[in-house]
This record gives sequence, structure tokens and C-alpha cells, in this order.
Amino acid sequence: MRVVILGAAGFLGKKLAKALLAKGTIKDGLGQTKDIKKLVAFDKFKADLETDDRLELVTGDVTDQATLEQLILPETDVIIHLAAIVSGEAEQNFDLGMQVNLHATQTLLEICRNLSKAPKFLFASSVAVFGGDMPEVIQDNTAATPQSSYGAQKAICELLINDYSRKGFIDALVLRFPTIVVRPGKPNAATSTFASSIIREPLQGQKALCPVSGDTRLWILSPRQAIRTAVKALDMDSSSLGSNRTLSLPGITVSVQEMVASLESIAGKEVANRIEWQSDPFIQKIVGSWPSRFTAHRALELGFEPDASMNEIIQNFIEDDLLVEPRF
Amino acid sequence: MRVVILGAAGFLGKKLAKALLAKGTIKDGLGQTKDIKKLVAFDKFKADLETDDRLELVTGDVTDQATLEQLILPETDVIIHLAAIVSGEAEQNFDLGMQVNLHATQTLLEICRNLSKAPKFLFASSVAVFGGDMPEVIQDNTAATPQSSYGAQKAICELLINDYSRKGFIDALVLRFPTIVVRPGKPNAATSTFASSIIREPLQGQKALCPVSGDTRLWILSPRQAIRTAVKALDMDSSSLGSNRTLSLPGITVSVQEMVASLESIAGKEVANRIEWQSDPFIQKIVGSWPSRFTAHRALELGFEPDASMNEIIQNFIEDDLLVEPRF
Repeated sequence: MRVVILGAAGFLGKKLAKALLAKGTIKDGLGQTKDIKKLVAFDKFKADLETDDRLELVTGDVTDQATLEQLILPETDVIIHLAAIVSGEAEQNFDLGMQVNLHATQTLLEICRNLSKAPKFLFASSVAVFGGDMPEVIQDNTAATPQSSYGAQKAICELLINDYSRKGFIDALVLRFPTIVVRPGKPNAATSTFASSIIREPLQGQKALCPVSGDTRLWILSPRQAIRTAVKALDMDSSSLGSNRTLSLPGITVSVQEMVASLESIAGKEVANRIEWQSDPFIQKIVGSWPSRFTAHRALELGFEPDASMNEIIQNFIEDDLLVEPRF
Repeated sequence: MRVVILGAAGFLGKKLAKALLAKGTIKDGLGQTKDIKKLVAFDKFKADLETDDRLELVTGDVTDQATLEQLILPETDVIIHLAAIVSGEAEQNFDLGMQVNLHATQTLLEICRNLSKAPKFLFASSVAVFGGDMPEVIQDNTAATPQSSYGAQKAICELLINDYSRKGFIDALVLRFPTIVVRPGKPNAATSTFASSIIREPLQGQKALCPVSGDTRLWILSPRQAIRTAVKALDMDSSSLGSNRTLSLPGITVSVQEMVASLESIAGKEVANRIEWQSDPFIQKIVGSWPSRFTAHRALELGFEPDASMNEIIQNFIEDDLLVEPRF
């Protein structure tokens, strides 16, 4: 089995590559367990992954058709498409967002369509497909009404991927991830980056700015649970999904206040006090427009699970990703 | 004011061109009534329209970028985008459907984005964006879950157009038209073509095949009401729509049985008997997957109206479009 991860140098890509290499298998479209013979980790930058005979690191530009054609060889069985320009950057640089988040996916799908057999195709979408006027609780059949170019590009890819799958060109699964908290590493250009910073930086002994009010609520999932979800999804018999291959994933609803309280209960008042509250009306407006509650009925019925609590999310981060000794 | 209609040789395009030339004005984005100085009617074939000093007939390929660049001159104020490959053909010929229904719209939007001022942009979408698992009655915020490539392409264009409008590149309005009944002219490659044929052909003294059962229900709008809707939409102050520029239009729900009963009440038993019932499981399955009831709350609140009855729809067809003397 040949597996290609696009966006493999990102934190989810790296964790997923590690998890798949550790597991060693993926079920094919017929439910047969197959060994991963080759895992191609593709990104703009070299993915920081431990050496493994099955692992091939490839760097290149996802918007370049020839690069993608060389990447998606005919014997490719599984494609995991995580490559994206994040929300804040896609809003600032419309052309770049369109090229990476939409046009590259269009090219990728056309390449898949020309393979002799339909590959499994896992796509990472986002709660950013929702926004503006929407119900208090998002149902599985609530319309995507994105209020950002990133969200629009993700929603468009969802539709494209569903149609390519319906036509039999790919065997698709689209996962709408909640906001991932606590992201390891450094802040990025995502509007949601603060939600990880206010936990991660204080635990590392650093200050963090919180640009939104304490009563702002988020729909979140931990990196550990996100990886479990993706690994499980790759093993699924996708025919059980029927014609709608898009799943809103379970998460938990937490207010920023609750996140900070949880941090304080685990790491103490001094750590929590490293957060500086500095309201940013621009970020408050965008984050406040995101949905914070989903029923996620279909995904729950299929056995996908949220994290147990904010406390567990923070404990998992300390175990999995904290690079320094926790400074409690 | 310079107005460009793409898809002007189709029955809606022709009727809309006539209606706009007769009315002579469109309100601009500031609500100011402006004279139509030039109406460019673009299509693959020459639109069959009466000579008018303001009218310019242009033929060309909508998938050719240079053609579109010559069409959308900087002084263009209003763009009405009706050009499409219909449902049945887009399903048979995936490449052609993608090129015309998606890629040409992408090119068109990029050209609009580079104009010095954002043009009004009216786009014809369709109830075909819905299908599969969906609620009994479609709400304004029900998710698009297309079960055809045509529907997917329309749903994708809706999202693109909304984002280009949100960014201020265009001033958009997307109208989701019900199935248009009674279409004038000849049957086409749309899966819904029978819905017009079973009224039109018998009134012209010809036989018509009905491939679906009498209890099949449709959500329909007459050409006359569709044109009223488009003309009204072009005059709207689109800022009153907020960030969601997509409107599901009002229609009426009729069963095929009710359509035939209405035909019989107007034209007699002999005419209605020109319909031959010949079940086609392929068409039954597709048509049966379409939604037949919508709340259309937003559009109704904005003053858009459905037809009064099936009887009125047939009477309007006889007045507006029947090419021969009715054969009652």
C-alpha cells in the first residue's frame, strides 16, 4: 500500500505520519488490512520525521501540477490531503489561498480521476465552513455559510470531493475538524491561534495574549483525538457513509474562561496569570462568528469520539507535546 | 449602464433580454435608476432577439478566457450569468460540465475582480443543489447535498460567488430557481425536461412521454414568474441581503397527476390523453431525489412571489409561448 500525505510537515501531518507508521496498516476499500509499504510525506518544507525504511520525504509546491503528477503515482492507494493556507493568511492573501486551498485540490482530484483505481482520499475540512446567520447548534444538515475565504475554499472542496467520490473517481472522506487545541509549536496565521497559545505559552513559562473575552466559546478537539479520528477514518468502510462523505466531527464546547480555569487547576495560578487579556475587536468578531455547538450525530453514530474534558486536553498536551519541563 | 447576459440564447436569457429592453432601466448599487445603454447578449449561438439599438449580439465559447475578457469590458455594470450545461448532459459529459459550469464561472469571477468597480452579478442556481438525505421541507439554511455533477457545480459556484461578493469584488445575487415549467421550445438534455413536455407537446397536438409516476412531486416556477423575479432581483439594494447572497426562490409544489389534471381542466380529456405513461426507473430515481417543498422564507420576505396555481402556469404558457394554435 502506497500512502501520500500532503501537508506532512504540519503538526497534524507529522503526528499522523508517525501514527500510521507505528500502526503499519490501513484497511483498503474492501475492508482488507494492508501493510503500508511506502508513506510519502510531502510538504513545502521537509517534514521533521524519524527515519523509516517506508518513509519518503518529498518537498515541493502543491500548486504545481507536474509536482503533483510525480507525487500521485498510479499505484497510490491512499491520499491524505492536509495542505492548506490557514484562515488569517488566506483572508489577507486571496490569490495564495485560492491557489493552495482550491486550485491545488482541483488539480489533485483530476490526477486521481485519471488513476486506474479510485484511491482512498481523506480531506481535512474545518468548522470555518460555518459562520454568519446560523442556528445555535449546528446540525449535520446545516448549510455551509462561510464568512472567510478559507472557509469558502474548504466548503467548495467538500462539494468537489463529494462529487468526485459519487462518480467513483475517488473513495472520499471529508472530516470537518473542530478548532485544534492545544496545537504544539509556535503561533501561526490562523485566527484561532490564540486558543492554543493561552495554554501552551504559559506552560512553557511565557506570556500569552488573549484577544477575546472570557465568555467566547469554542468547539475544540485535541491533536491526540484528531489523530485517533483520522486513523479510524482511514480504516472505515466508506460505503457505510452513503453518498454524503462529509462528517462534522464531535468536539467539546468550552469558553475561554473555562480553558483558563482548567489551566489554573492543573498548573496553578501563577501559570494562568501569564495570560494577558488584550481585546482585539477584529479577532473577537471573527471568532465570535464561529459555531461553538454541533450535534455531530452521524460521526458519533460511526463511533468517532470527542475529548473527555478540557483538563484531559491539557494533560495530553503536557504528555505529548510540551517541549520544556512544565513551569508550574 | 452596460449589461451583459451570458447564456442569452436560452429561453430564460431571451425572455430576460426582452424584459430588460422593454423596461429600459436597472437600479445601480446605490439604488439610482439608470438607463440601459447597451445590452450584450452572449451565447454559443446567436440569440434570436429583435433588433434594438441598445442590443449587441455576441457569439463565442464561454470557456475561453480571452472571449470573456473581451466581453466583460471595464465599463460593465451588470452581469447576468445563465450559461450552463444542463443536468443530464453534465452528468454524461463530466469534463464539459466542469468546464462550462465551474471553470468558466471561476474565470468570469477573476475578470470581475480586476474591474475597477464591482459589477452587479446575478447567477442562476437551481434546486439541484439539494438531494439525497434531506428534510421533507428545505429551509433557507439546509445544507446543499447535490446528487449530480450539475448540482455540485451550481453549489460550488454559489459559494465562490458569495465569497467574491463578501470580499467586495462583485455585488452578487444567487437565485436558486425551482424547476421551470412550462419551458417553451423543444425537449433538452435536462432530466426535468419531461415536466414541460407533458404540458407543451399535448397543447401542440403532439404526444409526450411521462417517465415518472403520477405521485411524483415537483417544486416549480413559470418562465413568466422567473423573469419577474430576475428583473426585481436586479433592482434590489443587495446590501439588504447581508452576507448571504443566495436565495431559494418561492415556487409551488405540484404532483405530476395534478399537472395533468390541470391540463385536462383547461384543454380537455383528448389533449391530456396525448400523454403516454412510460416509466423510466433512471429518471424516476433522479427526479424522486429532488426536493419538492421549500419554506423560501427569506425570498418571500423580500417580496419574491410564486405562481398562483398550475392552471395559471398553463394559461401563461398558452398566452406567452405556444407557437401553434392550441389544439383543444
